Amino acid sequence: MQKLNSTESGFAAKLAALLAFETAQDPEVDARVAAICEDVKTRGDAALVEYTNRFDRMQATSMAELTLTRAELEAAFLRLPDAQREALTAAAARVTRYHEKQRAQSWSYEDEDGTLLGQQVSALDRVGIYVPGGKACYPSSVLMNALPAKVAGVGEILMVVPTPAGEKNDLVLAAAFIAGVDQVFTVGGAQAVAALAYGTETITQVDKITGPGNAYVAAAKRRVFGVVGIDMVAGPSEILVICDGTTDPDWIAMDLFSQAEHDEIAQAILLCPDAAYIAAVEASIAKLLPMMPRRAIIEASLSNRGALIQVADLAEACRIANYIAPEHLELSVAEPEAWLPALKHAGAIFMGRFTSESLGDYCAGPNHVLPTSRTARFASPLGVYDFQKRSSLIRVSRAGAQQLGQIASVLAHGEGLTAHARAAEMRMESKA
Amino acid sequence: MQKLNSTESGFAAKLAALLAFETAQDPEVDARVAAICEDVKTRGDAALVEYTNRFDRMQATSMAELTLTRAELEAAFLRLPDAQREALTAAAARVTRYHEKQRAQSWSYEDEDGTLLGQQVSALDRVGIYVPGGKACYPSSVLMNALPAKVAGVGEILMVVPTPAGEKNDLVLAAAFIAGVDQVFTVGGAQAVAALAYGTETITQVDKITGPGNAYVAAAKRRVFGVVGIDMVAGPSEILVICDGTTDPDWIAMDLFSQAEHDEIAQAILLCPDAAYIAAVEASIAKLLPMMPRRAIIEASLSNRGALIQVADLAEACRIANYIAPEHLELSVAEPEAWLPALKHAGAIFMGRFTSESLGDYCAGPNHVLPTSRTARFASPLGVYDFQKRSSLIRVSRAGAQQLGQIASVLAHGEGLTAHARAAEMRMESKA
Repeated sequence: MQKLNSTESGFAAKLAALLAFETAQDPEVDARVAAICEDVKTRGDAALVEYTNRFDRMQATSMAELTLTRAELEAAFLRLPDAQREALTAAAARVTRYHEKQRAQSWSYEDEDGTLLGQQVSALDRVGIYVPGGKACYPSSVLMNALPAKVAGVGEILMVVPTPAGEKNDLVLAAAFIAGVDQVFTVGGAQAVAALAYGTETITQVDKITGPGNAYVAAAKRRVFGVVGIDMVAGPSEILVICDGTTDPDWIAMDLFSQAEHDEIAQAILLCPDAAYIAAVEASIAKLLPMMPRRAIIEASLSNRGALIQVADLAEACRIANYIAPEHLELSVAEPEAWLPALKHAGAIFMGRFTSESLGDYCAGPNHVLPTSRTARFASPLGVYDFQKRSSLIRVSRAGAQQLGQIASVLAHGEGLTAHARAAEMRMESKA
Repeated sequence: MQKLNSTESGFAAKLAALLAFETAQDPEVDARVAAICEDVKTRGDAALVEYTNRFDRMQATSMAELTLTRAELEAAFLRLPDAQREALTAAAARVTRYHEKQRAQSWSYEDEDGTLLGQQVSALDRVGIYVPGGKACYPSSVLMNALPAKVAGVGEILMVVPTPAGEKNDLVLAAAFIAGVDQVFTVGGAQAVAALAYGTETITQVDKITGPGNAYVAAAKRRVFGVVGIDMVAGPSEILVICDGTTDPDWIAMDLFSQAEHDEIAQAILLCPDAAYIAAVEASIAKLLPMMPRRAIIEASLSNRGALIQVADLAEACRIANYIAPEHLELSVAEPEAWLPALKHAGAIFMGRFTSESLGDYCAGPNHVLPTSRTARFASPLGVYDFQKRSSLIRVSRAGAQQLGQIASVLAHGEGLTAHARAAEMRMESKA
């Protein structure tokens, strides 16, 4: 695991190199995805079934065999061990409660002359949620994608989840049940994204697609963007821990592991002003690593992209955090609130020693779909606002048309758009 | 101009054909844009100056010659005729007032056990606004892109606007001045988008790029999406007018013209239950068209993509409007409020006979950057929310860690993520 010191020469360049991640779109993947999307757009269900059989080692003869009903989801929910069913239910309740605070409301106001201006907020009609299948199967992601849509009031929630060789995951289906998903199709990859975006005989076209996936899914989402809405295209997951050097070093080591265990390219970084504490965390890492079932992944991630960085003080740690704009920012310090005003860019901020990232990942309430790869500079966690949209409302009164018509006329003529000007002027002439 | 009737056989297919618009990405444009972006990313200012000289017929030797200061913007503002300066100022004030209502606020709440959950809302640090140059030069677009950023509290607003053969437009520069744009670079095309996205020696990397442009600009925005945020990729502009048949038909004809005059591929559609009224609008079109300076563009647009559609009643008009999800929806009826609940999808709704679209385009207050090509199904007008972002806040108390740790542990083990579970469990053990 790399060790850096913010006072060493070339630190800025080393930090930039540490964060660098090649996100270039692979032209070969793009070309294959383009062909798949076109084929599904043209041939619908037939193409979707063919690709699913080929890529997911299935032998389906029709979409009926790749469709799950609410009853099947409920059965999966009821089959769960009590502890899992209760934990899912409790997590869903907390996530729902948090997201209810995000609901935007319509508003309007009137000018003195009776002109009304406002914004009508409404939910999307239909959304599609992509859930990865196979090895990385995350029921928590089902909750985090579906519940904000549900809270927003989306009319219909479709979910696609590949089931390679037919293997279904009860926790994933149970999460879909509890989150109120309306229909589940056991398809995945670019073909599933295309089916949601263009619609097929069986799958009704959706208005937006959210959820993570592999390079093919990401390329397909990028391609259909505009036909439907998409959430962000996610990069590798990251954690940045700022620690004042007084948290149990085992806790910090485990927090770094919990990011690193996702993926060999996940990134876990610690910023701390105390050299002795950094050494203690290193010792904890060495002690705890052998006990981890995903040891190989954690080791690869930490040695490829992890770092322990000694900083001058916590103020400098905050400045570096703003540059990194991490997906997850753990503020493992005595007075986390005191540093909040100094922190501008992060997907989620975990404040205080008891707030492990994993509590936020599953059940604290906020969404775990967060902006990665420095996009927290401009992007937000997935939320209810991603499943609502706004329409501007304008009702100009007769009196208002006289005043506004004058302004619009001058500006329209200035842009050489005579019909715009005349449309405004006609409403003015009507006064006479 | 096409005439349709909702009762005729094959109406749904005819309507779909009318709305169809080929948005396929041109692989040749994509390849050229990819090369330009890569070159600007690698060579910075030198590449930017070269492309600008080549595509915009300039002879600049450095970026200094392609940079305008606030003082130059102010000079342009002061040079304007009084009427234009006053109209721009009045429009900016109204647009600012409307957008101030869109500012989101941070919030938080505490559980009974002291666990805090919330959302911190903050403005983007730096945004870039793309403004088309040449023929289609729209100062109103400068206001509509820059003012929401300003209201959001964005730290720095950069603007790029090509000046082919060196021709600058005072209205555009004056609008930049009044909207509080910090720096203007007279560059355009894919090279300008790449410069904003990656940064050069002269242009600091921005966090988000907004504003319309040609196919090269759109392809470049699509390409850099992820490195920076972008607004929507806009299609041709559209208006849908629903009229009850009692508005002056000249007004409606002019409203259709005001959309059609933008572009040969712009779309203007009228829905009305009254056949005699539709004939009257046709007569108005025939009467008024010869007087329009942009007659050729209007004629091409109306005959290519325009339509007069007779519907059964206003309720059916609203259902068709929801399918079309138009950018601009004019509700030229006696009781516009009565129909509002029936309308789900539109970028902006112009209510009542006095509310011409052109009043909204310039000065009513709401933004004129609106979702096109049926994307109002999931997208919103450009707004302050596009220049703010959110960070989740989580501060779990010692007591909260016991309860949440239990849930997180069960779910993390269910997903096979042991380090996630251990990180949560360690905080529980600490209770003892």
